[in-house]
Amino acid sequence: MGKEKDGKTSYQLKVPKGTKDWDGKDMVIREKIFGTISEVFRRHGAVTIDTPVFELKEILAGKYGEDSKLIYDLADQGGELCSLRYDLTVPFARWLAMNSSVQNIKRYHIAKVYRRDQPAMTKGRMREFYQCDFDIAGAYDPMLPDAEIMRITCEIFEALGWKGRYTIKINHRKILDGIFIVCGVPTEKVRTISSAVDKLDKSPWSEVRKEMTEEKGLDPEVADRIGEYVVLKGSEELLDKLQKDEKLSNNESAKAGLDDMALLFRYLKTFGVLDRISFDMSLARGLDYYTGVIYEVITEGSAPQTSEGQSIQQAGKKESKPKKHVSNIDGDEDRSNDPSVGVGSVAAGGRYDNLVSMFSGKQQIPCVGISFGVERIFSITKQRLAQDSSSAPIRTNEVDVYVMAFGGKGFDGLLPQRMEVAKRLWDAGIKAEFSWKVKPKLPQQFKAAEVNGVPWAVILGDEELSGGKCKIKQMGLEDGHPEKDGVMIEMANLEDEVKKRITTSPDSASLTNGLGGLSLNEYAAGAPKTG
Amino acid sequence: MGKEKDGKTSYQLKVPKGTKDWDGKDMVIREKIFGTISEVFRRHGAVTIDTPVFELKEILAGKYGEDSKLIYDLADQGGELCSLRYDLTVPFARWLAMNSSVQNIKRYHIAKVYRRDQPAMTKGRMREFYQCDFDIAGAYDPMLPDAEIMRITCEIFEALGWKGRYTIKINHRKILDGIFIVCGVPTEKVRTISSAVDKLDKSPWSEVRKEMTEEKGLDPEVADRIGEYVVLKGSEELLDKLQKDEKLSNNESAKAGLDDMALLFRYLKTFGVLDRISFDMSLARGLDYYTGVIYEVITEGSAPQTSEGQSIQQAGKKESKPKKHVSNIDGDEDRSNDPSVGVGSVAAGGRYDNLVSMFSGKQQIPCVGISFGVERIFSITKQRLAQDSSSAPIRTNEVDVYVMAFGGKGFDGLLPQRMEVAKRLWDAGIKAEFSWKVKPKLPQQFKAAEVNGVPWAVILGDEELSGGKCKIKQMGLEDGHPEKDGVMIEMANLEDEVKKRITTSPDSASLTNGLGGLSLNEYAAGAPKTG
Repeated sequence: MGKEKDGKTSYQLKVPKGTKDWDGKDMVIREKIFGTISEVFRRHGAVTIDTPVFELKEILAGKYGEDSKLIYDLADQGGELCSLRYDLTVPFARWLAMNSSVQNIKRYHIAKVYRRDQPAMTKGRMREFYQCDFDIAGAYDPMLPDAEIMRITCEIFEALGWKGRYTIKINHRKILDGIFIVCGVPTEKVRTISSAVDKLDKSPWSEVRKEMTEEKGLDPEVADRIGEYVVLKGSEELLDKLQKDEKLSNNESAKAGLDDMALLFRYLKTFGVLDRISFDMSLARGLDYYTGVIYEVITEGSAPQTSEGQSIQQAGKKESKPKKHVSNIDGDEDRSNDPSVGVGSVAAGGRYDNLVSMFSGKQQIPCVGISFGVERIFSITKQRLAQDSSSAPIRTNEVDVYVMAFGGKGFDGLLPQRMEVAKRLWDAGIKAEFSWKVKPKLPQQFKAAEVNGVPWAVILGDEELSGGKCKIKQMGLEDGHPEKDGVMIEMANLEDEVKKRITTSPDSASLTNGLGGLSLNEYAAGAPKTG
Repeated sequence: MGKEKDGKTSYQLKVPKGTKDWDGKDMVIREKIFGTISEVFRRHGAVTIDTPVFELKEILAGKYGEDSKLIYDLADQGGELCSLRYDLTVPFARWLAMNSSVQNIKRYHIAKVYRRDQPAMTKGRMREFYQCDFDIAGAYDPMLPDAEIMRITCEIFEALGWKGRYTIKINHRKILDGIFIVCGVPTEKVRTISSAVDKLDKSPWSEVRKEMTEEKGLDPEVADRIGEYVVLKGSEELLDKLQKDEKLSNNESAKAGLDDMALLFRYLKTFGVLDRISFDMSLARGLDYYTGVIYEVITEGSAPQTSEGQSIQQAGKKESKPKKHVSNIDGDEDRSNDPSVGVGSVAAGGRYDNLVSMFSGKQQIPCVGISFGVERIFSITKQRLAQDSSSAPIRTNEVDVYVMAFGGKGFDGLLPQRMEVAKRLWDAGIKAEFSWKVKPKLPQQFKAAEVNGVPWAVILGDEELSGGKCKIKQMGLEDGHPEKDGVMIEMANLEDEVKKRITTSPDSASLTNGLGGLSLNEYAAGAPKTG
C-alpha cells in the first residue's frame, strides 16, 4: 500500500491518514464481534438507532472541552455548518432531546466516530474508528439498570469467548467525592483532584501525589489521606469496611454512594456476576458528566505499562515481564486505541443523570451507559487467534458447497448441469458456488474450493448424471478415509443430502453461533482444541 | 422535531438538512431489509469490505463530471484534503487498485454516501443516504458473472417478499452503440444520443426526439430510425428478431452485444429467472463507464410519471390513473430517491471493464455490478406494510418473555426471584425483560409487555414458587381461551418450557427468516393473511 505512482496516473493511492479499509479476515472477525455484541444487547430488549455521520456544528460545540479542537468540520460550501460526530453520546442526547415523547429507551449504536488526533501527540490513534455504545435512559428504581449493564457486559465478554478473563473495575462518583471532602480537599478542587486520581491506571501513586501537591497545590497531608483510600480494592469486604468508616458514612455524598454500591452488589450476586467485579477506589474516569456508578473493563494484555515497564496489575509480581503493545498485522503500533474507553480498558462507562438537559429544558432523563472499545476488542481477539497455532484458518466467505464437474475425452464442462445444481442449492437456501468457466479442469475446481475453505463438494460426471446420481465429498479428508472419494447420492435427494451434511459440519456453526464459525470460544480462551 | 427553543439553550435541535435519524419501526424494517439482502449475497460467496467515510479529495476528483460540485469537502484544518465519499464504486475501484494481489472478488458494501444536492434543484433528495452495491471483479468466461448477478437480484426481491412483482429491464451498450451507428449517428455523437435515449424512462419519445434533433442537431431521419429500435421490448423473440436484422448483425459492435445477450438468455433460463427479464431497447443508463450489459429493476409504483401523468409502463392503458409519489411517514415528498439507481428504479447496474484502470496502470480488472436503491426499497416496503390493514404491528424490540410477579397483601415484589428467572433465561439465550421496579403492580407489568408486543409472560407468585412452580402465559389470548390464565409449569423445567413455546410461536420466525417476523412476505405480496 502507501504511495504508488505510475506513468498513467499521479494519484496517491492511499486512504486518509488515521483511516483504514476493512477487508479479508479482519472484516470477518469484526463482523462476528459486532454480531455477537448486538445479539446480547437484543437479548435484553435493546433497540438500535442510527444518527447522521455529521451534526450541526453548534450541537457538538462546547461538549468536549479542550478536545473540541479534534472535531472535524465540513468545509463551508454554503448552507449549514456541520461537523463529523466526535462520539455517539452527544448525538444520542440530541436525539433524546428532540424526541420528547421518548421517556425511556435501551439503545445500542455501533458506528464510526471521527477525531483529528495528531499522530505526533498521541501515537497511532485512529482518526476514524468504531464505537459501540449501549445506554439506558429513563427513571427506574435505584441500581436496577446499572446492574443489568454489568450483567450485559459479562454476557458480552463470555459470548466473545473470554471465559472470565476480564475484570470490571467499579467505583462511585459520590463515594469518591465524599472521600475527597472527608480527606480535606477544598470543594473547588474536587474535580481536578479526581482527574489526578484517574491517572492511577497508568501512573504510580508517587507521580499522582506529586501532581496533586506540586501542580494542583494540595496540602501533602490531604494527599496522603487520599492515598490511603485510593489504593483500596476488593469486593464486599471492602464495601463493609467503608460502610464502617465513620468519617465516610457521616458524609452525605459518600453515604449515598455506599448505599448504591450495597444495592448493586446484591443485584450483581443475584445476576451471578459479582465474581467479575473489582471495587476499585482508584477508578475515577476522566469525564466530568458522571454522577453515580462508574466502571471500566480490563483484560489480560489490555492494561498499559507503567513508566517502569510493568502493568499496574502486575506491578510487584516478580515474574512479570514488560510486554509489547498489541501489534496489528502490518507490524505497526497498535492503532486500535479508542480514547473513549481510556487507556488499557476494553469497555467503560457510568451513570450520567444530567447530560440530556444540556440540550433541552424538558425534564431530566437519567441515563446509564457503557462504551465498548470494539477496535481494541478486535485487536485482542485477532492477536489471540494468531497466537493459537491450532486455530483453524478463518474463512472469508461462507460457501458450504462447491459444485464441480469432471469428465474424460470430449468432456464439455457440464456447465448447464452445474448451473442447475447451484440453482437448486440456492433455492434451498444453501450457500454454493461453481466455476465461472465453461470447461474448467478438475484440479482448478478443487483448488478454488480449497482456497476458500469450502467444506463440501458436489461432483458431477456424465456417467453418474445419466444414472440420476452425483457424488458428494467432504473436502480435506485424509488419504485412506473411507469417504475420501466422496459418497454417491441420488440427484433427486440432492438438497436433503447436502443439508443433512452441512448442518452437522462444524463450519455451519457460524450460522447459529456468533463466533462459533471461528471457534473463537476455544481459541480466545486458550482451551484445548476440540476438533 | 424541527426548530425548538427554550430558556435554557439556544440550540437548534435538528439534524442537518438532507439527513435523518433512523429509529423505531423504520430502523427495524431497514435492518431486516439489509439483513435479507446481505444473506443473499453471502449465499453466493460474496464478502464485504468497508472503506473510510472520507477519501483523499484527489481520489474523487474528476470521477463524477459536473456532479463533482455535489461532493462534500472536509474543512482544511491542516494536513490532507479530504472529501466525503460520493458513492461506493470509486472507493471500491481505489481499493482494487491498492490491493494488486486481488485479481478477483465478489464484494458487497452497504453504507452511507454523501451528496450536496440542492433541494431547490432536485426536490427532496437526501444528502446522506444508503447505497448497497454488489460487484464482481475478475476475468471469467463471458456472461457467467453477469447471469449470476441477475439471479442474485431475483433472489433478493423474492426474499424481500416481492413475489415476482418486479421486472429487470436489460440492454447492452454494444447493441445500442451498434444501433446508433447503423442508424447513421456520427461517432462523436453516440454518447450524447445515448444520454437522450436514457431519458425515455421519464419522457415520451416525442420529447426525446426533440432533444436529439433540436438540441443535439441530429438529422430527423436518423432520429426516426433510432425511434424504430428503441421502442422495442420483449424477450427471446426480440433477440431473435434483432439477430435476423442484417444491418445490425453486420455491425461488429451490435453483433458482439447480441452474442452476449444470446448467451445471457441461455444462462438465465437455466437459472430459472428469464421470466423476470424484459429486453428493453430504450434502456441506456446515464453513466459513461458501462461497456457491456446494463440493467435496471422496476416495480409497481416505482416508475415515475410522464408529463401526461402516466407511467411509461402504463402509457396507453385506459385504466391507468396518475399516482402520487410514495410518501414518507411525515407526509413529505418521497425523500428516498437514490440518484444512483435512476429515477423510478429500485436497482441498477451493468458491466464496466475499464474503470479500475483509472486508478492504476496495472492490468485491467473487468467488473460487473449492481446497486440496490435500498432507501427506495425501504419506502416501498414500508408503504406496502402500512397499506395492509391486516398487518401485525411491527415490534421495535425482540423480547420473547416478560418476567412478572404478583401477590396479595404484603407482596414484596419478588424482585430477587424475577432477577433469578431473567438470569436463567438469558443464560439459555432467551430474550427476556422484567420491570425495573422493586414492587411493580401487575397491570403495569402487563402493560409494559403489551406495549412492546412481548409474546410470552412468565408469572411468579409466592404460593406457586413455594411449590416449585410458576405460570407461563401467552399474551393476547381472547377471553374464554382455555390457556387465557396461563399454564402452570415446574420451575426446574423453566428454560425448556419457554424454549418449546417460543420456537413454535410465529414471532420467533424473525430469528430465522430475514423478514418473516414482519410477515413481509405476506403483506408485500398482498397475499391473504395466513395467521
